[in-house]
Amino acid sequence: MNGKTQTRRDFIKNSAIIGAGLVFYKPTDILANDKGIIMNKNLKVKGYAAFDESGVIKPWEFERRPVGDNDVLIEIKYASICHSDIHQEKGDWGKQQYPQVPGHEIVGIVTKVGKNVTKFKVGDRAGVGCMVDGCTECENEEQYQPDTLFTYGYPDKRDPTGITQGGYSTHIVVRDHFVVHIPENISFQEAAPLLCAGITTYSPLMKAKFKKGDKVGVAGIGGLGHMAVKLAASMGAEVYAFTTSADKKDDILGFGAKEVIVVDSSEKLAPYAKTLDYMISTIPAQFDVAAYAATVKPYGFFTQVGMPKGFELTLSNIGFAANRVNFNASLIGGMKETQEVVDYCAKNKIYPQIEIIDAEEITQAWQNVIDKKARYRYVIDSATI
Amino acid sequence: MNGKTQTRRDFIKNSAIIGAGLVFYKPTDILANDKGIIMNKNLKVKGYAAFDESGVIKPWEFERRPVGDNDVLIEIKYASICHSDIHQEKGDWGKQQYPQVPGHEIVGIVTKVGKNVTKFKVGDRAGVGCMVDGCTECENEEQYQPDTLFTYGYPDKRDPTGITQGGYSTHIVVRDHFVVHIPENISFQEAAPLLCAGITTYSPLMKAKFKKGDKVGVAGIGGLGHMAVKLAASMGAEVYAFTTSADKKDDILGFGAKEVIVVDSSEKLAPYAKTLDYMISTIPAQFDVAAYAATVKPYGFFTQVGMPKGFELTLSNIGFAANRVNFNASLIGGMKETQEVVDYCAKNKIYPQIEIIDAEEITQAWQNVIDKKARYRYVIDSATI
Repeated sequence: MNGKTQTRRDFIKNSAIIGAGLVFYKPTDILANDKGIIMNKNLKVKGYAAFDESGVIKPWEFERRPVGDNDVLIEIKYASICHSDIHQEKGDWGKQQYPQVPGHEIVGIVTKVGKNVTKFKVGDRAGVGCMVDGCTECENEEQYQPDTLFTYGYPDKRDPTGITQGGYSTHIVVRDHFVVHIPENISFQEAAPLLCAGITTYSPLMKAKFKKGDKVGVAGIGGLGHMAVKLAASMGAEVYAFTTSADKKDDILGFGAKEVIVVDSSEKLAPYAKTLDYMISTIPAQFDVAAYAATVKPYGFFTQVGMPKGFELTLSNIGFAANRVNFNASLIGGMKETQEVVDYCAKNKIYPQIEIIDAEEITQAWQNVIDKKARYRYVIDSATI
Repeated sequence: MNGKTQTRRDFIKNSAIIGAGLVFYKPTDILANDKGIIMNKNLKVKGYAAFDESGVIKPWEFERRPVGDNDVLIEIKYASICHSDIHQEKGDWGKQQYPQVPGHEIVGIVTKVGKNVTKFKVGDRAGVGCMVDGCTECENEEQYQPDTLFTYGYPDKRDPTGITQGGYSTHIVVRDHFVVHIPENISFQEAAPLLCAGITTYSPLMKAKFKKGDKVGVAGIGGLGHMAVKLAASMGAEVYAFTTSADKKDDILGFGAKEVIVVDSSEKLAPYAKTLDYMISTIPAQFDVAAYAATVKPYGFFTQVGMPKGFELTLSNIGFAANRVNFNASLIGGMKETQEVVDYCAKNKIYPQIEIIDAEEITQAWQNVIDKKARYRYVIDSATI
């Protein structure tokens, strides 16, 4: 995995070298190994994995599938920590197969491309989010297709471990369609959180079609929420940020919020009843949905992007009858939009607030995320894996 | 309560008869009693009440507040049974004060009006729904105001029992603004269910603004649902009715549904995924909301009007992310709309399918509603109270 690539012509030429031993394998099974010699074996890589539901993340060496004709191999530079990583590995969303490498905010350099790949070449700056394969003709709705392969923990027969393995790792193999370009004018470490936190907030904010000067509420100011504040403010919204952490106030005003409301009880929401044009909630746990939604003007929209335990939310039906707000949920965004948010943030200098950590600090960082101590996204330096 | 009324002039004239004894009372406290003699006392009436959470309804004699200057006294002819009556009296929505007379689908004849009342005169055919007092200038949104007085079980200092008492009774006193006219061309018994089942489905159907030929889903075909089918069909929708009761199929086709889907498992919903332009659910219990909503086209709307136990619904957030449908809830409708639905049904001959019962059959009728045996609205003949 030294960055060498292999064209179709190279393959034919090189495969002649090792000859008959290869005939039992399809061409897509055959790859260059670390030494540049053509081999039919999987890729040995390093990562940090969950081995159980404890929330403890430890080093693990494992194998990834070979790079297929339509795939891209990425040498990962940085991967950031999303609350979803914690939820999934702790079993909050169902039983998991372990060891499992989490991580779906991934940036790095393309070191190999399959023979059909035209979108990328070796050396390109690349990003990968929550999906690694699936429908390639779904018009920006890849995330909603039944055959979507999510980045970690999803069954994949091609993978030596039987499931997809995520970005807390040195390398990853991804279908080209599910890789985006990272422009030169944004650092790798600042681009990483855009691949989930960025797109997950950007997609519904764009769909909300608010006008300049409209009042937009953001509930839950963590990794996703702080991006929502920055994005909405950059689009001209007057942003009202609702947080349970009083000590985040100055930060959030710095992100561009007009006002920060510290919600230590639902009563703090009452003065804002029916004042907002739109609200996005990134709260990744059960909360009083109807009370938050009631800050939106009747017949307006409230979008939930945080994913609570069990994927379920209990809401007050009579509260929603009274507030007359439309509830919807949103899952990341399509690949077209993902490229769009990366380009938008690079162009407009909208950078997540990050803290770089070594891989051995992941377990502690997870605990900090749970304890609401993250400010605001931990980014793992993959060189430390 | 013999139907005699009292004008302001009558009051002044009559109050002179009994003289000084009245000076301790405000004019609004003073009324004609059964004998037509001016008195300051409450009204003795009969009703059927819940005495505890058992779901057993028994006869009860009680007193209602005097008819105020802005009030109307109605001699009740019929009152129909709504699933809400059962939920509330059984304590599903919180602890209740007993005895409590339920019933908020009420029709009868005006037998007295307060001195300020111009909207009604004695002898008028009148209807009362879920509200009996509150804001009179709220532009058709009376049901959402903080001071709304709902028809039964709500604290009211003026009421001798301390709470409002509903329509399973011989008479009721209601603020004029919360009374609607019942046109001559609809029977009392067929008009009764319009006051809750009718308005609760009519209001969101009108707000949904579907076009002729649009596909409208109705989930839960009971008292509310069968009205939703009739109303939506009358407005030109192609109606898809979803029921758990296979034996309702022929009835529902008769109500105007294009297709009836018997949902004995959530899988039965799958073939309808993303096909409907709108869906209204009247299901008054926990159900798989996201799976039903998934029958609506992405970015369409799903309205919940059934009120489950505890007023709470648990929904799959990831299901809503995947279906991209907007969830909202709706509570009855405003007074302007309530008059509208009664007039609309009378004019277009849209009548609920009813079964008339005697008051002593209420307890059994409630059990039938719970057991999904009602076809489709029980209407109590108030002469049997």
